[in-house]
Amino acid sequence: MQLIIERGALLKALGHVQNVVERRNTIPILSNVLLSAEGSQVSFSATDLDMEIVDSAEAIVAVPGQITAPAHTLYEIVRKLPDGADVELRYQAGDDPRLTVQAGRSRFALPVLPAGDFPVMSGDHDGTTYALLKEDLKRLIDKTRFAVSTEETRYYLNGLFLHTLTEDGSGYLRAVATDGHRLALAEMPAPDGSMGSAGVIIPRKTIDQARRLLDDGTGYVELTVSPAKIRFNFGTAALTSKIIDGSFPDYGRVIPKNNDKLMRIDTGILSRAVDRVSTISAEKSRSVKMAIEPGRLTLTVRNIEAGQAVEEAEIDYDSDSLEIGFNARYILDVMGQIAGEQVELRLNDAASPTLVLDTADQGVQYVLMPLRV
Amino acid sequence: MQLIIERGALLKALGHVQNVVERRNTIPILSNVLLSAEGSQVSFSATDLDMEIVDSAEAIVAVPGQITAPAHTLYEIVRKLPDGADVELRYQAGDDPRLTVQAGRSRFALPVLPAGDFPVMSGDHDGTTYALLKEDLKRLIDKTRFAVSTEETRYYLNGLFLHTLTEDGSGYLRAVATDGHRLALAEMPAPDGSMGSAGVIIPRKTIDQARRLLDDGTGYVELTVSPAKIRFNFGTAALTSKIIDGSFPDYGRVIPKNNDKLMRIDTGILSRAVDRVSTISAEKSRSVKMAIEPGRLTLTVRNIEAGQAVEEAEIDYDSDSLEIGFNARYILDVMGQIAGEQVELRLNDAASPTLVLDTADQGVQYVLMPLRV
Repeated sequence: MQLIIERGALLKALGHVQNVVERRNTIPILSNVLLSAEGSQVSFSATDLDMEIVDSAEAIVAVPGQITAPAHTLYEIVRKLPDGADVELRYQAGDDPRLTVQAGRSRFALPVLPAGDFPVMSGDHDGTTYALLKEDLKRLIDKTRFAVSTEETRYYLNGLFLHTLTEDGSGYLRAVATDGHRLALAEMPAPDGSMGSAGVIIPRKTIDQARRLLDDGTGYVELTVSPAKIRFNFGTAALTSKIIDGSFPDYGRVIPKNNDKLMRIDTGILSRAVDRVSTISAEKSRSVKMAIEPGRLTLTVRNIEAGQAVEEAEIDYDSDSLEIGFNARYILDVMGQIAGEQVELRLNDAASPTLVLDTADQGVQYVLMPLRV
Repeated sequence: MQLIIERGALLKALGHVQNVVERRNTIPILSNVLLSAEGSQVSFSATDLDMEIVDSAEAIVAVPGQITAPAHTLYEIVRKLPDGADVELRYQAGDDPRLTVQAGRSRFALPVLPAGDFPVMSGDHDGTTYALLKEDLKRLIDKTRFAVSTEETRYYLNGLFLHTLTEDGSGYLRAVATDGHRLALAEMPAPDGSMGSAGVIIPRKTIDQARRLLDDGTGYVELTVSPAKIRFNFGTAALTSKIIDGSFPDYGRVIPKNNDKLMRIDTGILSRAVDRVSTISAEKSRSVKMAIEPGRLTLTVRNIEAGQAVEEAEIDYDSDSLEIGFNARYILDVMGQIAGEQVELRLNDAASPTLVLDTADQGVQYVLMPLRV
């Protein structure tokens, strides 16, 4: 293999794929990126066996071929090369095989492993394929991923549940995440061709990688969803991932339908007030008490060691007074995603889940489980 | 104690002192800041028993008095209060004594400890007092502190050696740091009244705090130096610190005087080339080999696992060829402080210390000990 590629294009493609590569690997080749040069293209693949990212770039290919080399080292070298440099990548089989990387007066020789040993995800991409705007997929992810569970025992909650459904005769594409303490739901009108695609639990790491790749450019991303795999096609870059093999719980039962105590408050005021009072929360139970009465919200945190904090704020509320506790972190996570100036809390009582709605976005719903205070 | 202070002024003063407070303290009161209100001023003191920072701010003092409260918590609360808010601080002795912090509709009650228990450094500030421009002290610190040792066994190297000396009939104020592997020296014409002040080893933490305080504003800083203590007076803020009780080694013997092989190179080119080749250094011994010959420098890093890197660069050099090894990190640290476009290396042989000079600043000298390569 021998090719010349512009440093910027090489850096961008390596940047897209190298994040998948774990820092420590028991299988050495998983530390490597697969380079494949053919025609006027070179493609780059990285995998952690659960997920694979492939990207490609234009190159002047003198000798087609394939080889694998350490992904992070190669990326770091290219990152440090001067802007605009032409980089030559060359691999020749022999007694002491190396990938040489040359640019200007810099020359690197990196250890290689055979391309044939590189694990490639099976090429079948059966399933339902549909396209949606990158902006729309970003929104589905951003509004929900904070609620993905990190508890390994409930592995089926360690991802974002993406599925389609019909409600009142309309089709929706919906993302849901929950860790048992809070739930986040975001939906959009179902993209053409998406209805009936398999409901899949996309692992957290895949979601994070997909979100990173969504930062590049606008336009459409193409999803191919099957019961075993999901594929995101971003244009040149493509991410293929296993999905979590499990059943996502029947989250609909957790979303309260009949909470009739409605409280409205300025999103920023609530967010800043909760942030302030939580300063003196104990590190583990960041519990904040809300005393809700007509016209007034009182937030209280009491901590035997660190003292007490009280905040008052004006609210729209005309139901019976109520005291309820929440984890401050969970409130702040939700507030961080509310687009509207006002946020609406739909409450029932101190022991029941509270529904949080965005006055500027009807397509999102959040559920917060109360804490005993 | 009862006073009203503008949030910005309070935040600034607390910001100056709270950094001294360690996150974990076996002595509870060391987590606190001492507030003292009198006249139209409130002063803030924090200490770790080795160092004390005091700052003050204007306030409307209704009831003079003193109290101590948790420094980090108080700082965090004030940081989160809205810009421009008036903050009331109030302390009243009683059964459940608290410092209340009130601003707008926010109210905090923080635990307190008696002001009388707060350790205050002895007020004697004997010693030599002189003033120098903040810019000049910044330079002395920035050019040298990276070489301060972190090895606790050689405690007398865990600080910056600040002293005055006479050379060729002129007086200089000089800062020196070394960890035994490299040495950094920066000097300036002795400020008025500084000659003959005690040579002191200023602890690393003190240097870091002083440097932080130097970022605020321009003008002069006043130093008071005695054999036991150093005091930095920045204007409203003042830092008093114990100095390290030990003898700084006779560093002059380490600085090579007769190295006659002179190499000049573009600072940025050397810096970027070393950075690139060090990408494949083993993590511990970041050793880079320099092969120096007339007109050409060749940098090489060999690492059995990660491969090999070679860089070439043009140099001004017309002595005998030479190969010498250095720790890449140490070269980069020095290059980061070179102001000139060109840097000069004065070499002897592969086993002897190399002197590094800044072509734009005659008042600095760096010594690098070679590594065997």
